[in-house]
Amino acid sequence: MATVSLIEYEHASPAVRAVYDDIRATRKMDFINNFWKALAVNPEQLKRTWEGAKAVMAPGAIDALTKEFIYIAVSVANKCEYCVHSHTAAAKAKGMTDAQYAELLAVVGMAHSTNGLVTAMQVPVDAAFKVV
Amino acid sequence: MATVSLIEYEHASPAVRAVYDDIRATRKMDFINNFWKALAVNPEQLKRTWEGAKAVMAPGAIDALTKEFIYIAVSVANKCEYCVHSHTAAAKAKGMTDAQYAELLAVVGMAHSTNGLVTAMQVPVDAAFKVV
Amino acid sequence: MATVSLIEYEHASPAVRAVYDDIRATRKMDFINNFWKALAVNPEQLKRTWEGAKAVMAPGAIDALTKEFIYIAVSVANKCEYCVHSHTAAAKAKGMTDAQYAELLAVVGMAHSTNGLVTAMQVPVDAAFKVV
Amino acid sequence: MATVSLIEYEHASPAVRAVYDDIRATRKMDFINNFWKALAVNPEQLKRTWEGAKAVMAPGAIDALTKEFIYIAVSVANKCEYCVHSHTAAAKAKGMTDAQYAELLAVVGMAHSTNGLVTAMQVPVDAAFKVV
Amino acid sequence: MATVSLIEYEHASPAVRAVYDDIRATRKMDFINNFWKALAVNPEQLKRTWEGAKAVMAPGAIDALTKEFIYIAVSVANKCEYCVHSHTAAAKAKGMTDAQYAELLAVVGMAHSTNGLVTAMQVPVDAAFKVV
Amino acid sequence: MATVSLIEYEHASPAVRAVYDDIRATRKMDFINNFWKALAVNPEQLKRTWEGAKAVMAPGAIDALTKEFIYIAVSVANKCEYCVHSHTAAAKAKGMTDAQYAELLAVVGMAHSTNGLVTAMQVPVDAAFKVV
Repeated sequence: MATVSLIEYEHASPAVRAVYDDIRATRKMDFINNFWKALAVNPEQLKRTWEGAKAVMAPGAIDALTKEFIYIAVSVANKCEYCVHSHTAAAKAKGMTDAQYAELLAVVGMAHSTNGLVTAMQVPVDAAFKVV
Repeated sequence: MATVSLIEYEHASPAVRAVYDDIRATRKMDFINNFWKALAVNPEQLKRTWEGAKAVMAPGAIDALTKEFIYIAVSVANKCEYCVHSHTAAAKAKGMTDAQYAELLAVVGMAHSTNGLVTAMQVPVDAAFKVV
Repeated sequence: MATVSLIEYEHASPAVRAVYDDIRATRKMDFINNFWKALAVNPEQLKRTWEGAKAVMAPGAIDALTKEFIYIAVSVANKCEYCVHSHTAAAKAKGMTDAQYAELLAVVGMAHSTNGLVTAMQVPVDAAFKVV
Repeated sequence: MATVSLIEYEHASPAVRAVYDDIRATRKMDFINNFWKALAVNPEQLKRTWEGAKAVMAPGAIDALTKEFIYIAVSVANKCEYCVHSHTAAAKAKGMTDAQYAELLAVVGMAHSTNGLVTAMQVPVDAAFKVV
Repeated sequence: MATVSLIEYEHASPAVRAVYDDIRATRKMDFINNFWKALAVNPEQLKRTWEGAKAVMAPGAIDALTKEFIYIAVSVANKCEYCVHSHTAAAKAKGMTDAQYAELLAVVGMAHSTNGLVTAMQVPVDAAFKVV
Repeated sequence: MATVSLIEYEHASPAVRAVYDDIRATRKMDFINNFWKALAVNPEQLKRTWEGAKAVMAPGAIDALTKEFIYIAVSVANKCEYCVHSHTAAAKAKGMTDAQYAELLAVVGMAHSTNGLVTAMQVPVDAAFKVV
């Protein structure tokens, strides 16, 4: 259960409805997921977050599916159950294959392991990696 | 400074040298980065970790550069300074452009923000995302 | 489900009851929340933790509601579902308004985002910030 | 060392300079801290992040100093060294007293401890806390 | 609910069954826990992970119960609900007493607290601790 | 650099000196590490934390070295550089062998990996593990 009431379209203010309408138009589907309904308690933050997400997740130098892989990876390491579910679903909707998912999981598992080992041993950064 | 001594090739046991040799052959370069020199305190774990990493990071259903994006994303969220540096360097070596890096950063920033918001509001997972 | 049995007042030892009594007297309510009932498996730790919490959360140079804001912020970043719920409820009980909660969420979201970006880019600390 | 070059004012594009100018005007000081100089690799994200931060950190239902307390709390729990330093400095600049800082630290220490204990024991959320 | 289908023995491929058989033989019980059934979506990773876990968790210079204590400690700090439950159950099965569990919890709570305080104050590492 | 001034014995108040004296007597050595010198900005919290640590880390149902293993494990997963260094040094001082350290690292690496995998796949807790 959320700490805030989820705001449905029919009870939303015009400012919130405008964002919901844009979500629907951008995604070409009626479904509004719970994250936005929760964030709607603060219409300004809803608008800022949605507009940020829309800009950031659009395909550009990195394609839309790869962006979902990155989003899943962050969400797993940040232990966000909702985000893992929603972005895994998004990745599947954008065409992620079972083989890709299996490899994504393998990289995630490997990265967690070496992250822990490096931190445990406090390995110093190689000079070769500092090349800006 | 590390909690263990870094083991250089010339002081390494045959078991450790065999792994170092395979790292060099696989990457087609002489450079062995500090992570492996630290992990060499446990030759078995060195071998297991390197063989896992080699298998996992090879291009497959997901290409090698995208795997680095995922690795960076996990390492950032896990706050592993060494890993962020080493995998950002690896991504550059594998052709990551400035435009790709800028977009990667944007996705990482957005994901952290929504991860935090979702956790703060304890948003319940939409039934639609549970579709296995 | 917890990994330990929750200890109710009627089944508690005198040492545990003494803490429960102090919780009730301090908070001026009968309700004992599950955290204390779980911690009661170790009566010494229960006592030490409660006495620490009572001292730390009392109004002082920082008022009691602001302390709840800080507690929520830590709990969100530490991904502690129980703690997010219990301290959000506590903040509401201490008078947190909807407007305050919306702003708290906005700061939490912003902080997570910049934390992630700073870590991704490994930004060096400005000399100006090192001013002890 | 950062993974990106820090962009100084004199080498910045007009879009980046416009943000730097607004940071200076808003804060009434010349100093631009490294975070913005790093983020400038992506002018759009720089603008979006600065505008978000400016809006979010302005005093409102929660005063500006309390917002810094919250920011510090998140940054500590997220282990962001840069962010801890920059926001502790900001809190001092906004009038945080030594007594307030000592109490902030006490709450941060207590919250981390109970977050860990709750997670270790997997304490179930009390029904009383679910009151939306 | 998992993001993948759990694979039961009767529907498993020969490669997956071989791992399940080894889990059963090693643990001398029929029960296969959900983690392995989920990981079975990637038979290679299942095999690599199981073989790693079998080697790592076997008694050696550190006994098997102490290894579970370490595993629980990491899992708590990483906020992995499943892992906390499964390794607490494993520790109990390996003979963890109530007194040991109470002390484990006390160390976990203390470590989280000082971890948070150290990070908040950015305490510099004593030269005496750097003694490789 | 710390966010607070480290307080040396000669400049400490009587209340702080009393704690420093007890640290020295308990550990049978003159050395006071930086954590306590930083925490001394809040004498009450210094006293409470030290007394908690002294009680918690004393040998009991779990021996003193195993408690250091647990402390290291939490500190690694919480990414606390200072704590990793100080408790690894403490473990060595209490007799940790190279073979034990290598196995500790192996468990830490394995636990991080499976924590990440479990979170990525959102594996449901087996009923068998819920046995309080």
